[in-house]
Amino acid sequence: MDIFVLFSGGKDSSLSAILLEPFFNVTLATCNFGFVETWKPAAKVASELGFPHEVLRIDDAILESACEVAVSDGYPNRAINQIHGCALSSAADGHAIIADGTRRDDRVPMLDLSDARRIEDRSGCIYVRPLLGYGRHAVDALVNDHLEIAEDESEEIEKSDYEVELRSMIKERHGAGMVHEIFPRHHLQSRVVRRKK
Amino acid sequence: MDIFVLFSGGKDSSLSAILLEPFFNVTLATCNFGFVETWKPAAKVASELGFPHEVLRIDDAILESACEVAVSDGYPNRAINQIHGCALSSAADGHAIIADGTRRDDRVPMLDLSDARRIEDRSGCIYVRPLLGYGRHAVDALVNDHLEIAEDESEEIEKSDYEVELRSMIKERHGAGMVHEIFPRHHLQSRVVRRKK
Repeated sequence: MDIFVLFSGGKDSSLSAILLEPFFNVTLATCNFGFVETWKPAAKVASELGFPHEVLRIDDAILESACEVAVSDGYPNRAINQIHGCALSSAADGHAIIADGTRRDDRVPMLDLSDARRIEDRSGCIYVRPLLGYGRHAVDALVNDHLEIAEDESEEIEKSDYEVELRSMIKERHGAGMVHEIFPRHHLQSRVVRRKK
Repeated sequence: MDIFVLFSGGKDSSLSAILLEPFFNVTLATCNFGFVETWKPAAKVASELGFPHEVLRIDDAILESACEVAVSDGYPNRAINQIHGCALSSAADGHAIIADGTRRDDRVPMLDLSDARRIEDRSGCIYVRPLLGYGRHAVDALVNDHLEIAEDESEEIEKSDYEVELRSMIKERHGAGMVHEIFPRHHLQSRVVRRKK
């Protein structure tokens, strides 16, 4: 069975792909709105992990709308969840089985049960979340078994998650000050270096 | 990493074990209160699947208490959830990582998020639910790939889930009429015949 996995290049979506690999033919897909070419770091990680990788182009009106939501809320959570729901709907269009890397203790992005079922009911696809039954310690133990991770204090790590384009658009439209108001500073950034096994 | 998986011998806990197998050393464990020797069908399925199997003896006071709850409610759900929580706590005592076969669309047994976290916080163990991110269609597709299932209309199938001992105790204490009042009739019963792959 083929499965189309939303992939940011981070630990969680990498582990998600590894958990699916024995049971599905995995293709990784990184969302991009065409605002900044953010998918390249994810493509590199996908290649390190040994999975085929695609870019999933999404209508930039969705990024525009999320940008307004984030500025209006003064906080990014609802905007990121909105993007994630649209990304899943877009992935469900043309793929019978889709997945992501959301896990039990995540707050953002995270669909509640009724929204997850709605994705399936609307599109007729199957939506799988391999990490939903795994808490933080379980994920850490599996990541430690399967992935080599580097952590850096810098904000220079190239990432492919939704936040990058959202920050860029907010910066362009509302200035760097608004970006710092909306996004709490991350001190430690982690990135997947390679697969251990 | 060793993982101790609560196992009824049914489709869901069988699939759960299969999903964990590439990543953990799986031991299956079937709960028994010593009221009826219900664990034998599960031991047979475990052997068919190729996993080591243990019986997890649980204090029969828990079955007594669940029996009272079921009779008082006139419905088995809360009683079965209560047994499941106690079974998990018992499994967590002495095992670093535990799991079960509960899946996204289950209602019983099913712990909510705060109860799941409480199991981990109290015992210091990791509690994994490999099927929690899988809905009905996803589970059906994987079961079809990995398990040969037989379905029978009879109620004669030997099962190893909590319900069997709970029904037996209710029958002994309150008569067969009470059992039929509390438990809705199942018309189709499924059992795992063997593993396909």
